[in-house]
Amino acid sequence: MATSSLLLVLALQLSGALAHNNGLALTPQMGWNTWNHFGCDISEDTILSAAKSFIDYGLPNYGYGYILMDDCWQAPARNATTGAPIADPTKFPNGVASLADQIHSLGLKFGIYSSAGMYTCGGKFGSLGYETIDAQTYAEWGVDYLKYDNCYNEGQAGTPKLSYDRYANMSNALNATGRPILYSMCNWGEDGPWNFAPTIANSWRISGDIYDNYDRFDERCPCTSMIDCKLAGYHCAMTRIIDFAAPVSQKAGQNHWNDLDMLEVGNGGMTYDEYVTHFSMWALLKSPLILGNDVTNMTNETLSVITNDAIIAVNQDANGSPVERMWNTPISTGGTLSLWSGSLVNNTYVIALLNTSPDAQTVSVNFTDVFIDQGPSYQAGTYEIYDLWQKDDAGAWGASVGTYTGSIPDVQIG
Amino acid sequence: MATSSLLLVLALQLSGALAHNNGLALTPQMGWNTWNHFGCDISEDTILSAAKSFIDYGLPNYGYGYILMDDCWQAPARNATTGAPIADPTKFPNGVASLADQIHSLGLKFGIYSSAGMYTCGGKFGSLGYETIDAQTYAEWGVDYLKYDNCYNEGQAGTPKLSYDRYANMSNALNATGRPILYSMCNWGEDGPWNFAPTIANSWRISGDIYDNYDRFDERCPCTSMIDCKLAGYHCAMTRIIDFAAPVSQKAGQNHWNDLDMLEVGNGGMTYDEYVTHFSMWALLKSPLILGNDVTNMTNETLSVITNDAIIAVNQDANGSPVERMWNTPISTGGTLSLWSGSLVNNTYVIALLNTSPDAQTVSVNFTDVFIDQGPSYQAGTYEIYDLWQKDDAGAWGASVGTYTGSIPDVQIG
Amino acid sequence: MATSSLLLVLALQLSGALAHNNGLALTPQMGWNTWNHFGCDISEDTILSAAKSFIDYGLPNYGYGYILMDDCWQAPARNATTGAPIADPTKFPNGVASLADQIHSLGLKFGIYSSAGMYTCGGKFGSLGYETIDAQTYAEWGVDYLKYDNCYNEGQAGTPKLSYDRYANMSNALNATGRPILYSMCNWGEDGPWNFAPTIANSWRISGDIYDNYDRFDERCPCTSMIDCKLAGYHCAMTRIIDFAAPVSQKAGQNHWNDLDMLEVGNGGMTYDEYVTHFSMWALLKSPLILGNDVTNMTNETLSVITNDAIIAVNQDANGSPVERMWNTPISTGGTLSLWSGSLVNNTYVIALLNTSPDAQTVSVNFTDVFIDQGPSYQAGTYEIYDLWQKDDAGAWGASVGTYTGSIPDVQIG
Amino acid sequence: MATSSLLLVLALQLSGALAHNNGLALTPQMGWNTWNHFGCDISEDTILSAAKSFIDYGLPNYGYGYILMDDCWQAPARNATTGAPIADPTKFPNGVASLADQIHSLGLKFGIYSSAGMYTCGGKFGSLGYETIDAQTYAEWGVDYLKYDNCYNEGQAGTPKLSYDRYANMSNALNATGRPILYSMCNWGEDGPWNFAPTIANSWRISGDIYDNYDRFDERCPCTSMIDCKLAGYHCAMTRIIDFAAPVSQKAGQNHWNDLDMLEVGNGGMTYDEYVTHFSMWALLKSPLILGNDVTNMTNETLSVITNDAIIAVNQDANGSPVERMWNTPISTGGTLSLWSGSLVNNTYVIALLNTSPDAQTVSVNFTDVFIDQGPSYQAGTYEIYDLWQKDDAGAWGASVGTYTGSIPDVQIG
Repeated sequence: MATSSLLLVLALQLSGALAHNNGLALTPQMGWNTWNHFGCDISEDTILSAAKSFIDYGLPNYGYGYILMDDCWQAPARNATTGAPIADPTKFPNGVASLADQIHSLGLKFGIYSSAGMYTCGGKFGSLGYETIDAQTYAEWGVDYLKYDNCYNEGQAGTPKLSYDRYANMSNALNATGRPILYSMCNWGEDGPWNFAPTIANSWRISGDIYDNYDRFDERCPCTSMIDCKLAGYHCAMTRIIDFAAPVSQKAGQNHWNDLDMLEVGNGGMTYDEYVTHFSMWALLKSPLILGNDVTNMTNETLSVITNDAIIAVNQDANGSPVERMWNTPISTGGTLSLWSGSLVNNTYVIALLNTSPDAQTVSVNFTDVFIDQGPSYQAGTYEIYDLWQKDDAGAWGASVGTYTGSIPDVQIG
Repeated sequence: MATSSLLLVLALQLSGALAHNNGLALTPQMGWNTWNHFGCDISEDTILSAAKSFIDYGLPNYGYGYILMDDCWQAPARNATTGAPIADPTKFPNGVASLADQIHSLGLKFGIYSSAGMYTCGGKFGSLGYETIDAQTYAEWGVDYLKYDNCYNEGQAGTPKLSYDRYANMSNALNATGRPILYSMCNWGEDGPWNFAPTIANSWRISGDIYDNYDRFDERCPCTSMIDCKLAGYHCAMTRIIDFAAPVSQKAGQNHWNDLDMLEVGNGGMTYDEYVTHFSMWALLKSPLILGNDVTNMTNETLSVITNDAIIAVNQDANGSPVERMWNTPISTGGTLSLWSGSLVNNTYVIALLNTSPDAQTVSVNFTDVFIDQGPSYQAGTYEIYDLWQKDDAGAWGASVGTYTGSIPDVQIG
Repeated sequence: MATSSLLLVLALQLSGALAHNNGLALTPQMGWNTWNHFGCDISEDTILSAAKSFIDYGLPNYGYGYILMDDCWQAPARNATTGAPIADPTKFPNGVASLADQIHSLGLKFGIYSSAGMYTCGGKFGSLGYETIDAQTYAEWGVDYLKYDNCYNEGQAGTPKLSYDRYANMSNALNATGRPILYSMCNWGEDGPWNFAPTIANSWRISGDIYDNYDRFDERCPCTSMIDCKLAGYHCAMTRIIDFAAPVSQKAGQNHWNDLDMLEVGNGGMTYDEYVTHFSMWALLKSPLILGNDVTNMTNETLSVITNDAIIAVNQDANGSPVERMWNTPISTGGTLSLWSGSLVNNTYVIALLNTSPDAQTVSVNFTDVFIDQGPSYQAGTYEIYDLWQKDDAGAWGASVGTYTGSIPDVQIG
Repeated sequence: MATSSLLLVLALQLSGALAHNNGLALTPQMGWNTWNHFGCDISEDTILSAAKSFIDYGLPNYGYGYILMDDCWQAPARNATTGAPIADPTKFPNGVASLADQIHSLGLKFGIYSSAGMYTCGGKFGSLGYETIDAQTYAEWGVDYLKYDNCYNEGQAGTPKLSYDRYANMSNALNATGRPILYSMCNWGEDGPWNFAPTIANSWRISGDIYDNYDRFDERCPCTSMIDCKLAGYHCAMTRIIDFAAPVSQKAGQNHWNDLDMLEVGNGGMTYDEYVTHFSMWALLKSPLILGNDVTNMTNETLSVITNDAIIAVNQDANGSPVERMWNTPISTGGTLSLWSGSLVNNTYVIALLNTSPDAQTVSVNFTDVFIDQGPSYQAGTYEIYDLWQKDDAGAWGASVGTYTGSIPDVQIG
């Protein structure tokens, strides 16, 4: 299925919104997570090797700074006396604190994983009822980031209050440690975290898990909207997550982001154009950019996508304002054509056209649509337009494609 | 998109319903709010200047009596010792009590704003957990009206009981002060305030925020009905709010009103005909009429809309009975044609035809439809019909257009 | 809109189900309620006059036994010292106990009304928080029946548990009095009383209030199903309530009935055929049969409908098994054609065909559809068929129309 | 309506998931339940006779091991002094412990029934509030299995937490006895037991009760999905339950199974082909296989279906991984054609094509669809295909039908 996204940059400033006040994630967090490549098969060695390769590829130069250890780091049981969490002594013979130190010595930050339930999704001990000792231990270990999942939550969901209370317990425990720890909620959009989580978390997942596919409907991700979904599931295709994000985009801002889930760029299930769309839309929607591919072995194509610093600059723009979908037109042969628009600092705007139909489309971008929120004077303005997926003469991402007033006529897309 | 509304007045009386018993808002409140024009950029000076202009334009003569100070009046923090709210000392060097006094000396009433959450929507301190001291302070300051928002509510929503308890806390605190303070709930229709709020509030918002647009669907206002909406959002176009109001119209009455949000008349996003529809339908649905335009600088056209005293008389009619939508017919070219009907005092009725299709429509108004609730004798009656948007020979709003029995045939609309 | 219902009686037995154990309402209650005719304008005189007329018309001979005093019997306030309820001394100069005595002396039972809220729907004091003293007082007054409404419930709804707890409080209070008082819940189907109420009540309303209309959609009754409706409303047309009843029919049985709301027969808003359908379907669905017309002045036609003792016998059949809708076929010109079937005692069955389309229909009634629950041997059986709306040669309702095996071919309906 | 299912076996391994840790139901439980054949008419004699016939037919050789005594074993009341449950002394003159002993002496395990409510569905005393003494008594009686129903639950439903707490009470009580008792929740899918029950139960029902019908819509099973159904009902046709299972299949695994309800094979309401589909899909979806027919009198055809040990091997495969529906295509004449795929141990896979349309279909099974979860190398692989409903030359179920790469072209189905 053909697809492409045209990205253009234009003009102005906005304001931020209040959120979880640990001082972290002023812009969406960037990093790499072990799960998609290693799954449960992680160890001190595999993580350190990946971190070193991560540096060799120069990823920190683009803003990627977190190495996130996902599920299966745990020993079979907690400390029987103290209840403290223990890492698997075989996988982590020197302990988690040592691993964190080594990650820190590489100039990177270190993240850990647990679940707001009796068990983690991988069947290890969860943190429900152990929030205080777990947060304290993470802080002692030098942890900088917690991804906090939702498996085996013992029925403590179904109203915003039940979910809030469960996730706020860990938020408070993390804050009480005195160590700044980025708090990444992963409750799959249940009970509307965009409504209840801004004051307790730096980001929250908005849907079931992504899988490396462009637009296939999978019954394991059965809901057509996440606004009141009772079965978030997993195997949610990339463009379906974009649809899920559209109505809740309004809820994100500085320190409190919608997390569209880890990136699949480089995992092989989509084409180059599809990965360009994936990376671009995640960036524009201000999702955390957490790589999920094998960072020890990347093609040039993969590297070129994840290091487009013009796109990353949009994601990390100080305004912290996600794009909104201004229109979304069904195409008779399937899919839709949609226009997205958002504000950046310094009188600059970002626009995206997204074509998920099987056919190429020609469409004019009308500034009355782009600047619905800004009003008539902006709608009548003149703008210099840049294509963020073309390089300029100096080889930098973002080539000027001309100056336009009122509209950009006859844009070819797909 | 063409539109117009025909308004007609006819014959009888009804009864009121029980509600929040602070003695206020027997009819829907009328006034002006700072937010749409000034946003966060308010001060003693800007508010007083607006109030004076408000008087110069003669608005109190039409019933507009409240000057409402919306968000961003607060200092960065509460009093560290007492927890009492403090106004921003730069914006309000003489304090809120002084401002209220000056408003009162102009013969107007003064309103304030807060949120039933940890923060206000603008990121200032909220009132959740501070209801008693906030209500007491407002009373000491001479506040007459509280708009109480829903941001950062810490997950205390999702069942009517959670929302009721949170909003009842402030209602009880206001009542305990002994000062009559009109209580305007702004929980965006969550959990059905039309069901749970009549005994605790004078009015409640029924949807996400309005924006200055006739009928555009915006993804930030994603629900197609507010009866069980889990994401009220904002950027709800004017006629979409009318649709939201139709099924809950039955729930409003004396002292307890559906609030369709502030008026956009005069803000430039709609045509004259569209603003006529906006003002008329807000009035007939017994919404509070809170101006949201720049009251220091109004065109004659804007002024003529908001000072149609025939329409205002319908809004302020002592029956307190909102119109109901008697039928709503889809038009093949888009939009609908609908008939609305309601009872006023003194054997008088109000009828509206609303055409939201792009084309002019011709339709007969059948009295069997108008008087569904009154029955056969009314359906067979003869009525003198007035058009409330035409002036009579003496220049007063409401010109007779003839006497009809059974129906008004071939009404042209649009 | 044309309509008719064909009713036929056939052959066998079933079993009952457990429910509220006050020994009342083994079969659906029958009686008359003040509301539809008198509204708030009731008094000792009006009620006694109606009761006497009720007897003069011979209604008790058909099973009608309850005289139900609806809202507005209350004084402006409770006894300030004891909190006990007080009747309006002007309307009821001799008190409620005296009225109940006089009703009893006529051989009838007496019912009262209140609401599980702060106020009743008519704005009188409600019983929320006063369950014990109210139940005790009702018992002292000699009350036999309580209709318990849902207005002003202070947000105590939205989960089955909130609704159950609120209504169980009164159920327990009534039981504690030692006097058998039939408990008729009126929570409009909120939170699924068919699921939670069988052990606490004798009947429960399943929808918003009926109005005297055959099938008009009114926006005040906005939900298309009552299974998860968040705004029950009122002005629900008669056949819409039949649709609401279809899926919950399975939940009713001895002592615990679905209440489809009061009857409108005789109030003038429907034709004779439509009232026949109304009375028949209420009876077959085992709704309480509570007259809502003026029982002091009835036409012969009205009287003939409400005294069809063959239909009443189906309602009062000892099996207590409501009919189920076996199929429901849309008709292209609007409405549907549906088949209903249910078991009575003594190997007898009741069948109804309901045609809500504007046109006459011809259809065969296949015994494989009628006896889906009974299986092949019943489906192949031979049955004598009676039409319950025809009189036999002796002038009794229910004339034989022949003997059929396998099907009744070519039934004309409408 | 024509139907058939083609079943094929191929190649690999997966991992299990954590669940209720009583050590039972590593694979779905298999057995026989009294309800469908005997209903309330059970006794020591009828159950022992059935158990002996069950053995005579050799069913234990195929894995069927539980004899489950459903509702109506109870005396009219509990022990008035201790509150302990008592069996009906007429039906069970020697008591339940004696019956359990005799079942055990036949080499079988014994199950009992109760409800998490005030009464059971058949109107006997329920276990709500009696969890501890009931579990203790069951353990003393030698009970190995509890089916725990949902009738008369007193409004303790509507959020996952309410349902979890109610069912966890019995789970904890069973665990506290020290006797391993398989815990089979029967809350009809309310509040999403697939989300909250894995840590407390071995299986949970996902819908209202099955009835012996292929695909008829019955209004007593009104919901089109069980993800957020507020009226589970009963009379759910077999293929409708398959539809209900599709999105929640992802939630089952070792020790925690989706229960699609008892089998109807042999009860006469479906054809041989339909029962083959029924038994196959229950097995592939890893439902418990609980016979519901008359095990004292089975036809050879019935016996051949329930003893297909190739199908049973799929159900009991150590992977514990239910099939997922990979695609589901509507057929213009009604019904759908769908592909299901799942992993077994030893590099083996199971595939099913399900045709619920009235007509035969021809379709190619593409390995890119079968192996969506396994990826490109599997999609390009070569597999030997077996038809599990054909016998090989030695008379064993599962005959090879050839070797295929990339796809199985032109499969005829139906």
